[in-house]
Amino acid sequence: MTYAAPIADMRFALEACADLWRLRDRYPDLDAETLAAILEGAGQLASETLAPINRSGDRAGVTLKDDVVTAAPGFREAYEAFKAGGWQGLAADPAYGGQGLPRAVALAVMETVHSANMSFGLLPMLTLGAIEAIETHGAPDQKQLYLEKLISGEWSGTMNLTEPQAGSDLGALTTKATPQADGSYAITGQKIFITWGEHDLTPNIIHLVLARIDGAPAGSKGISMFIVPKFRDEDGSRNAVRCIGLEEKMGIHASPTCTMAYEGATGWLIGEENRGLAAMFTMMNAARLNVGMEGVAVAEAAYQKALAYARERKQGGAFIIEHPDVRRMLMTMRAKIQAARAICCATAVAADAGDKAREDLLTPLAKAWSTDLGVEAASLGVQIHGGMGFVEDGGAAQFYRDARIAPIYEGANGIQAIDLYGRKLLGDRGEAMFALIEEARGFAPIRAAADVLADATDYMLAASRDDALAGASAYLALAGKVAGGTLWASGLQRAPNADQQRLFDFYVTTSMSRAPSRLAEIRIGADALGDFSA
Amino acid sequence: MTYAAPIADMRFALEACADLWRLRDRYPDLDAETLAAILEGAGQLASETLAPINRSGDRAGVTLKDDVVTAAPGFREAYEAFKAGGWQGLAADPAYGGQGLPRAVALAVMETVHSANMSFGLLPMLTLGAIEAIETHGAPDQKQLYLEKLISGEWSGTMNLTEPQAGSDLGALTTKATPQADGSYAITGQKIFITWGEHDLTPNIIHLVLARIDGAPAGSKGISMFIVPKFRDEDGSRNAVRCIGLEEKMGIHASPTCTMAYEGATGWLIGEENRGLAAMFTMMNAARLNVGMEGVAVAEAAYQKALAYARERKQGGAFIIEHPDVRRMLMTMRAKIQAARAICCATAVAADAGDKAREDLLTPLAKAWSTDLGVEAASLGVQIHGGMGFVEDGGAAQFYRDARIAPIYEGANGIQAIDLYGRKLLGDRGEAMFALIEEARGFAPIRAAADVLADATDYMLAASRDDALAGASAYLALAGKVAGGTLWASGLQRAPNADQQRLFDFYVTTSMSRAPSRLAEIRIGADALGDFSA
Repeated sequence: MTYAAPIADMRFALEACADLWRLRDRYPDLDAETLAAILEGAGQLASETLAPINRSGDRAGVTLKDDVVTAAPGFREAYEAFKAGGWQGLAADPAYGGQGLPRAVALAVMETVHSANMSFGLLPMLTLGAIEAIETHGAPDQKQLYLEKLISGEWSGTMNLTEPQAGSDLGALTTKATPQADGSYAITGQKIFITWGEHDLTPNIIHLVLARIDGAPAGSKGISMFIVPKFRDEDGSRNAVRCIGLEEKMGIHASPTCTMAYEGATGWLIGEENRGLAAMFTMMNAARLNVGMEGVAVAEAAYQKALAYARERKQGGAFIIEHPDVRRMLMTMRAKIQAARAICCATAVAADAGDKAREDLLTPLAKAWSTDLGVEAASLGVQIHGGMGFVEDGGAAQFYRDARIAPIYEGANGIQAIDLYGRKLLGDRGEAMFALIEEARGFAPIRAAADVLADATDYMLAASRDDALAGASAYLALAGKVAGGTLWASGLQRAPNADQQRLFDFYVTTSMSRAPSRLAEIRIGADALGDFSA
Repeated sequence: MTYAAPIADMRFALEACADLWRLRDRYPDLDAETLAAILEGAGQLASETLAPINRSGDRAGVTLKDDVVTAAPGFREAYEAFKAGGWQGLAADPAYGGQGLPRAVALAVMETVHSANMSFGLLPMLTLGAIEAIETHGAPDQKQLYLEKLISGEWSGTMNLTEPQAGSDLGALTTKATPQADGSYAITGQKIFITWGEHDLTPNIIHLVLARIDGAPAGSKGISMFIVPKFRDEDGSRNAVRCIGLEEKMGIHASPTCTMAYEGATGWLIGEENRGLAAMFTMMNAARLNVGMEGVAVAEAAYQKALAYARERKQGGAFIIEHPDVRRMLMTMRAKIQAARAICCATAVAADAGDKAREDLLTPLAKAWSTDLGVEAASLGVQIHGGMGFVEDGGAAQFYRDARIAPIYEGANGIQAIDLYGRKLLGDRGEAMFALIEEARGFAPIRAAADVLADATDYMLAASRDDALAGASAYLALAGKVAGGTLWASGLQRAPNADQQRLFDFYVTTSMSRAPSRLAEIRIGADALGDFSA
C-alpha cells in the first residue's frame, strides 16, 4: 500500500473548518510552520514505517502463549520509531515531558497513524486515554509514578470496562476491589474486549480498571476506577493480572483483543470512591472522538487505495477512472471524508478551547457519523476494485473488515444516538444544537437542511422518550450531515479554495440535498417499530 | 446458526407481489399446495443440511493439491442430499428429467439455499446457468449428451468468462479456439474467478467457455461459446483443463474460486460462431437475477441471526430487543428484504410469463438493488451483535464478508446502472419504465416517488451519455425503491395482510419517503464528478 497523508485536506479541515487559530492565545507557541512540520513528520512515519506492516500484520495477527502476547512482525520496530519521535506526548502536560500542543493537532496526527495501520494506532490511542485519565483524576504521586513513562511511550495504557454480562450497561459489572492494609485494593474479576491488554512492545502496561469496592452501592453508582500496573510499583514484581484469551476477529488482526483475568491483582484507587464511571466518561469523550477519527482514517486509506487502482487499472482500453460511476464513487468517498474530518477536528478544537457545550454536542456526531462513513467508504473502495476488492491480496478487503469495528466500540453508534438525545439535547433543552442550527442557516446551501434539523429538534424535545429514541439514529444522521456541511461552509468562508469548493458543491448536491428527507424517519415513533415478541 | 425459511414472507412476495398465479395457464400442474410443499421441503434441506455446515465451511475453506480441489467437510454429503431431492432440475425441461416448474419457484428455492449456505448455493446456481445455456443454444446432440446429467445434478456446470485483462470488458478476451479435424476446437488460454471451476463433488464438470476462433474479428464480435467437459465425451479421458490456483477471498470461503488453465482442451462450439457473447447474455440474465436473490438471502440470514441474538441477549436487565434503535434496525432489514424479494420474484415471474420487457427492466434492479441491500443488512446484523458481531465466533461477521461479493460479480452494480440506462431505457425510449411508473402512480404512498422517477427518466433520456452515466447509479437506486414499493403495494391490494401492511408502512415512512430526494444526485452531470487526472 502506498499511503500519503492528505496534508492539504487535513489542514483545511483543521485550520479553516475547525478554526484552529482561535486557539492562538492558548497555544502561542504553535504556528502554521510548526503545524506543517508536525503533520509532515507524522505523514512520513505513517507512509514509511506503519503502512508497510499493515497487510503483513493483518496476515500474521497476534499470538498468545504462556501468558505472553507476541505482536506481529515489524510492530516492535515501528513502535520504537513512534516512541522515538515523541508522538505519544504531543498534547500531554509539559510538566511530565509532553509537548503541550492542542489535542486537535494530536488528533490530526492520529488520523495518519490510523490510515496507515489501524491495528497499530489503537496502542497509542489507548495509552492516550490512560494519560488523560491520570492527568485529570490522578493524585500527585500517581502522576509522578506514571505520567512521564506513559507520555514518553515507554509504557502503554489500557481501558478495562467490559465484562461478559456488562457491555453497554456498565452498571452491571462485578469485578470487585477489596481494600488492603497498605491502602491498595485487591482486584478480582474478568474483563473482555481489552484492546492491547497484553503485548510485548513495552516493558510495563498500566491498566485502568473499573471495579466495585466491597460494600459499594449496586448499579453504576458503586463503580470505582483503579490503576493496575502489570508490574507492581513497590517492588517491580509481576502483578496478578494476565491475558487468558485473544478474540478471533474479523479485522484489526494485529491488535490483540484480550480477555484479562484479575486474580487479586494490586490496584490503586484513582479519583473518588464510587465515582469511577464519571472518571471513565472523561476518558471516553476523548476516546470516542479518536474512534471517530479512525472512521475518517480508514475511509481515507480506502479512498487512496481505490483512487490508485482506478488510475492504473485498464478495462477495454480505458482506465476505469474514466467511467463516470467510478469517479462518482471516489468523489462520494472524498467528500464525506472531508465533512467527517471537519466534524472531528472541530470537536477537538472545541475541547482545546474549553467550549464544553460544543464539544459535548459534537462528540456523538464525530463518533457515529464518521465511523458509519468509514464502513461506507471502505465498501465503496472494495466495489471500485471489482473482483480484486474481494480477494485479500487486493488490499481493499482489509479496510472493509477493519472499518467495521469502529461503529461498535467506545459506545455503539446506537448508544451515541441515545447520548445525543438524552444527555446532549435534553441536557440543555437544545441550546447547543440550536446554536449550531443558527450557524447553519447562515449558509445558503445548508439552510433547507438546517430548517429541517430545527423542526426535528423541536420534535425530539417534545416527544416521549420512546418515540424520540425510535428516531434518534436518523436524527443523528441528519445532525451529522448538517454539522459537516456547516463547518465546511464556514471553512470556505474563512479560506476560499477552489478544490475544496468543488468538493463541497458535490457534497451539497449528492448528500446535503438528501438531508431534509430524513424527517419522516425521525418522527416515526416507537409504535411503528413492530412487535418482535417471540 | 438456526435458520428457518421465511415461508410466509416468501409466499407473499411470490404469490401476492409478483402475482405468481398469472402463470396458471402456463403451468397448470402447479397449485398452492404443491408450492407450499416445495418451499417447505427446500426450507428443511436448508435448515437441517446446509446451514449446519455454513460456519464450518467458512473456517475450513477449500484446498488445491495436485490439480484436485477438495471441498469443505460435509459438503459432499450435503450435495448428495441436494441431488437426491431433485432440486437442481425444478425449472428444467421435463424431456431431460426436469420438473418444468416456473423459474420463479426455482428462484425461491435458491433463496433458502443461499440463506443457509451461500458458498454451497453457488454450485447449483452455476449449474443452472449451464443448463439454461445448453437448453437455449445447444444442438440436439449436445442436449442429449449433457442436459440429463446436469439436470439431475450428477454433473455440475461453470461459466468461464473473465480473464486477467478482460473483466467487465469481455471484448478484450484472448483465449483462443483452434478448429480440429473432427469438428471440435482446441481451447487454449487462462480464465480467472471461475466459481466451483474444479471440485470433488461430481464426477464430471461441464465448462462453458468464451473464446476466440482463429481469425475471428477483434472485440466482442469475435467471441464464441464452447462446451469443454472435464472428462471428454468420446472416451472419458481427462481433458486438458485444470485448476492452477485458488483465490484467497474475504468471504464465501467454501466456494472454490479457480484460475483455470486450458491447454489445448477439446471444446465444442455451442450456438453460432462469433455469437458467444449474445449466448452468454442469455445465461447472464438468469445469473444476475440469481445473484440478486443471493443478496436477499444473505440479508435474510443476517436478519434471523440478529433477531435471535436481540431476543436472547440481555444488557442492564433488559433484552436488547427492547431498545427502540435495535427494533428500528431489525425492521429496516426485514422491510428492505421484503421489497427486494418482491423485485426478484417479479423478475422471475415476468421471465416465466414471457414478458420480456418487464424482465429486462427489472433484472438490473433485482441484481443491484438487492445486493446493495445484502451488504447493508449484513452490516446492520453485525451492529446489532455489538462486540460479538466483530468476533468470528458470533457468526454475524461471516454474512458481512460473504455478502460483499454479490454487488461485484455477474456484472458489478455500476455495470447494472449502465445496463439500465443504456440497454433498457434507451432500448425502448423509456416505455417499460413508464409502464412501471404508471402502475406506481396507482398507489398513494408511492405516487410522489413515482412522479420524481418520471422526471428522472425524462432527464436520463434527454441527457448526454456522460451526464446520464454520472447519475445512473442514483437513478437505479430510485427505480429500485419505487419498483419494490409498487410491487409490494400491489401485493397488498391483491391479498390484504396485517403483518405485511405494517412492514410496508414502515418501508414507506423510512425508505420510500427518502426516494424523491435522489433527484439532485441523478441530475448532477459528469462535470461535477471532479478531475482525477494524476
